[in-house]
Amino acid sequence: MDALVPFAPDRPKTRLSDTLTPDERRAFADAMLTDVLAALRAADFRPRLLTTEATDRDAPETVDERPLTDAVNAALDAHDLGPESPLAVVMADLALATPRSLARLRGRGDVVLAAGLGGGTNALLTRDPGFRVDYHGASYLDHLRAARGAGATVREVDSRLLATDIDERGDLAEVLVHGDGAARDWLVDVGFAVDASGGRVSVGRQA
Amino acid sequence: MDALVPFAPDRPKTRLSDTLTPDERRAFADAMLTDVLAALRAADFRPRLLTTEATDRDAPETVDERPLTDAVNAALDAHDLGPESPLAVVMADLALATPRSLARLRGRGDVVLAAGLGGGTNALLTRDPGFRVDYHGASYLDHLRAARGAGATVREVDSRLLATDIDERGDLAEVLVHGDGAARDWLVDVGFAVDASGGRVSVGRQA
Repeated sequence: MDALVPFAPDRPKTRLSDTLTPDERRAFADAMLTDVLAALRAADFRPRLLTTEATDRDAPETVDERPLTDAVNAALDAHDLGPESPLAVVMADLALATPRSLARLRGRGDVVLAAGLGGGTNALLTRDPGFRVDYHGASYLDHLRAARGAGATVREVDSRLLATDIDERGDLAEVLVHGDGAARDWLVDVGFAVDASGGRVSVGRQA
Repeated sequence: MDALVPFAPDRPKTRLSDTLTPDERRAFADAMLTDVLAALRAADFRPRLLTTEATDRDAPETVDERPLTDAVNAALDAHDLGPESPLAVVMADLALATPRSLARLRGRGDVVLAAGLGGGTNALLTRDPGFRVDYHGASYLDHLRAARGAGATVREVDSRLLATDIDERGDLAEVLVHGDGAARDWLVDVGFAVDASGGRVSVGRQA
């Protein structure tokens, strides 16, 4: 089963600009991608990169410089979608995704959706040839409506591990607390540690 | 199956002080409690309040002014825990909790844990008479370790709906996007709406 992984190495993790240098953001995004590809393979998906510039990853890739929604919809157009040939779309910054959480995308339903924090759609799987994405704004509700409006059966995957995309400084604490892959190792290597002195844990960094 | 719901009406939602007045915080906390109690009942739990002061809710309640950890552990001490008499502990601010997500706490395992955002433990169920809680800091990892260290079998429930406790301004967007109960209605009534102009959706409020 194919899983498309959109990746934007040319503008990595801009909302972490207050916390990481541009080079660091690129390295951290790379580490998260490593974790996502490994988890997908362990869940028996065949990951395919949809990237804004060529990478040297050991995975099939399509280079498409357009915005996320356009690039993903072009890939959906090009895929012979149907009950026997679904396509998953999994974000590259799901550093907590496990094989088990990703396997839940295979559940029944023409369209399977996993929400992200903040109203987004972090992972989905479609068997419906008419379903298209629109990642603008609170995309989750839009995707729900679009799928139901088209008469597709929808399954919602209720997963914290898939909901936690790593975009902002506060999200780094989730990787430190719950992660166990390349992204966590990278954060620890560059000096991040959990700060549990407040309500929710946050992160601190050694100079 | 009993479910203990800790509730602190005397100091409601202090991390929302930047967004809501004290009276509003109390009303919002009440609305979330209404949603949690309804979802628990729909999932065939018998909710029992563990509250810092008396309420007029239609549920059995124990008034205990001590800090959360002490009060919950006293309730665990008082419960004849075992395979046939588990006790769940579910936070009162899980405004997105659904009967289905709560039912996952009934899964096998001596101790069943659902993490919260920021390293916390938002819901758990224990059948192990030796398990005690410690909500300080990144409690989820501490609870995992304590349960495993005591030889208990542990099940981790991977649920976004249970992970999303509503503590901070940013969390209100989750209620507006995904909620459908009293807490969402309350937010809408007092003027909150989703602002989808940024990366993750946030909230705005009409004057």
